[in-house]
Amino acid sequence: MNITEFVERSIGRWRSQRSVHHLAFSHFEAVQSVIDIVALSLDDQAVLDLCKSYNIDAQTVVSPFRMSWEGQSDWDENEVLKGSCILVPVPDPDHPNRGQLLRDQGYAETMAAVGTYYLTEDETFVLVTGYDRAAAEEKIWFINPNVRCRVSLIKTSANTGVVTASFSSEIRQEIKNKP
Amino acid sequence: MNITEFVERSIGRWRSQRSVHHLAFSHFEAVQSVIDIVALSLDDQAVLDLCKSYNIDAQTVVSPFRMSWEGQSDWDENEVLKGSCILVPVPDPDHPNRGQLLRDQGYAETMAAVGTYYLTEDETFVLVTGYDRAAAEEKIWFINPNVRCRVSLIKTSANTGVVTASFSSEIRQEIKNKP
Repeated sequence: MNITEFVERSIGRWRSQRSVHHLAFSHFEAVQSVIDIVALSLDDQAVLDLCKSYNIDAQTVVSPFRMSWEGQSDWDENEVLKGSCILVPVPDPDHPNRGQLLRDQGYAETMAAVGTYYLTEDETFVLVTGYDRAAAEEKIWFINPNVRCRVSLIKTSANTGVVTASFSSEIRQEIKNKP
Repeated sequence: MNITEFVERSIGRWRSQRSVHHLAFSHFEAVQSVIDIVALSLDDQAVLDLCKSYNIDAQTVVSPFRMSWEGQSDWDENEVLKGSCILVPVPDPDHPNRGQLLRDQGYAETMAAVGTYYLTEDETFVLVTGYDRAAAEEKIWFINPNVRCRVSLIKTSANTGVVTASFSSEIRQEIKNKP
């Protein structure tokens, strides 16, 4: 599976159940949300702007998409978790199963970021993103066309400690039209 | 990584946080438990008996171990979840990263079972076990020597539906002496 197929399979509306394990104090947090993943065209202005901000040739990117989410956590049921961001894969020309993933700031993310991804032989998408003081590692794989799993880890920057581990099971609700 | 290294890294006492997602009705269940994984010797009588019951030559097995657990679910805080079973890997002589995993009935498992396992290039242990009316798929990988993650899926026997998806984050508490 390459990144284009992975993004194609991800397009749609997903109902997500997410459990967050705060490891230091054995706390469980439960989040329920709806996630929309929508394909963007390669000449979408937001995609071109994001490429420009990272000095990436827009001819080298594939399958850009927007991810939006809206949900609630059992930590604070009055707060609505809501956000959206644009994600742009830049495959490595020498290794089609690897590449960079650009992400814009969005209106909920604190900062733009570039992660590196790869797809394993058993079709798991792995994304590693380094931040100033932490690193995030995410694994996503499909159980069938309508169910996918996502495990996210936040590690300290030394990469030795894991601060939170979270697991999402996502069930497809509806296929969105592609642009 | 082969199965011997994987078992060696697993030996010890783990504090486990487990979230179970009951997908059909979007329910979250939280389980906290302590898991002990103890190496057994190849001439342990229980190991020999398990091999015999499956007609497996005891010379072909490696790294047998016992797994015991004791915990509590937030579904029923008065009930103690407790069990133990013996697990015996039988590597495929032609493919060292694959094999069978024998499991005895234990005192909490409803039935003995044989699963097939493989280890991926990115060091994830994958175990698939078929039952009469369902199939279980489990993935386990280490984040560092003292933290591991486990995702378990229970599917209907047709393999199309996923009934529950669960995620455990496991933190090492104490190294047990090997026999």
